[in-house]
Amino acid sequence: MGLVVLQLFWTPASPFTRKVVVCARELGLWGQIEVRPTAWPLDWGYATVPFTAGLAEANPVARIPTLVTDDGTALGDSTLICQYLNHWVQNAATTPAESATIIPVDGAQWSMWSLYAVADGLLEAQVAMRAEMLRPAAFRSEDYLQKQRDRIARCFDYCEQRPGELDAPGSLPNLAQITLGIACGYQDWRDWLGDFRSNRPNLRTWYDKYSQRPAMLATEPRDTPEA
Amino acid sequence: MGLVVLQLFWTPASPFTRKVVVCARELGLWGQIEVRPTAWPLDWGYATVPFTAGLAEANPVARIPTLVTDDGTALGDSTLICQYLNHWVQNAATTPAESATIIPVDGAQWSMWSLYAVADGLLEAQVAMRAEMLRPAAFRSEDYLQKQRDRIARCFDYCEQRPGELDAPGSLPNLAQITLGIACGYQDWRDWLGDFRSNRPNLRTWYDKYSQRPAMLATEPRDTPEA
Repeated sequence: MGLVVLQLFWTPASPFTRKVVVCARELGLWGQIEVRPTAWPLDWGYATVPFTAGLAEANPVARIPTLVTDDGTALGDSTLICQYLNHWVQNAATTPAESATIIPVDGAQWSMWSLYAVADGLLEAQVAMRAEMLRPAAFRSEDYLQKQRDRIARCFDYCEQRPGELDAPGSLPNLAQITLGIACGYQDWRDWLGDFRSNRPNLRTWYDKYSQRPAMLATEPRDTPEA
Repeated sequence: MGLVVLQLFWTPASPFTRKVVVCARELGLWGQIEVRPTAWPLDWGYATVPFTAGLAEANPVARIPTLVTDDGTALGDSTLICQYLNHWVQNAATTPAESATIIPVDGAQWSMWSLYAVADGLLEAQVAMRAEMLRPAAFRSEDYLQKQRDRIARCFDYCEQRPGELDAPGSLPNLAQITLGIACGYQDWRDWLGDFRSNRPNLRTWYDKYSQRPAMLATEPRDTPEA
């Protein structure tokens, strides 16, 4: 592959950003990504905060992950970024061995995307709870937190009932599995979210093994710098 | 095209759902979609509410739009649903004339997706404000509302500065334009959001014309039934 450099606005705490990083590592693209660390004051969830230089200029939504491609195109959505990275690897491959993919083809992609949307819904609910917890106590809604807890429980239960979809047939995990693994990891890291393993033996067994992949071990979440 | 029936969990108020409906209409697929209306009590934004029958069973994230394909696969994300509909039309086309697309190919898709992510960020911020406004006053955060207002202003300003991307070269609008049009329409419908036209002559001129497309006129937003 050529010496293309992609810029990624990043923090170690964001599960959506971790999704992009794990995809890049699994696809062998990580060496071509320049990390642009971002800092977020703890009121990011409920106030306009000063943005790290370059972020809002590239992507007016002003959030992470944002990828800037080698021709300056900014992609401000983690699903689209993962699709871009996978497409990039397909286009650059000169031998079948190089043609790794995290998105199945020929019709099989839609069942993968179905599970992916559930796993991504888990990440959204988890981040929504984190943002709500960061609000001043007076503006925090216990009903809202419960809504997200209920959603998280429904989504993990759904995944638990699909053990056949947790293991990819190829050598690489698919994007749904990557996203679900990150949801499990986030649930463990923010331990007030509760243990996803209770009454979910399939998920527990799967994640015990999946979490040992090098791309997962190299991207354990950490708190974002506040400035 | 064959007599395939896709089911769409729907409300007339949701801009993400409108995006899917406009795509289906522009692609000539609307006749193959069975609408499954959903009802939402006004506390949907901050509480677990009773779901319309079938919704949470198909998609445990339990939100709309959710599309169920003819083989029973549920897609619970509007971006993925639009990609599915476009892919479906491409696969079913037997003549070039039938091969309408709302997603450019051969590299041109990434600049489209770049603008799309900004337009979709507009929808997210608008819906976030609506959900916050529905909270009991004691739990409402003016700082949070201002954060979303600032995001909306940045995103509309960004689009205003890209007049060349507002008109598609083909006969159909692309998915970024479709999404931006719906953001403009939502801003008008929820008029407390403010007029997006002030100091944005390019957007005003573009939307004056774009909003007259049959797919837009047929999908004007209306309040969701509460039960």
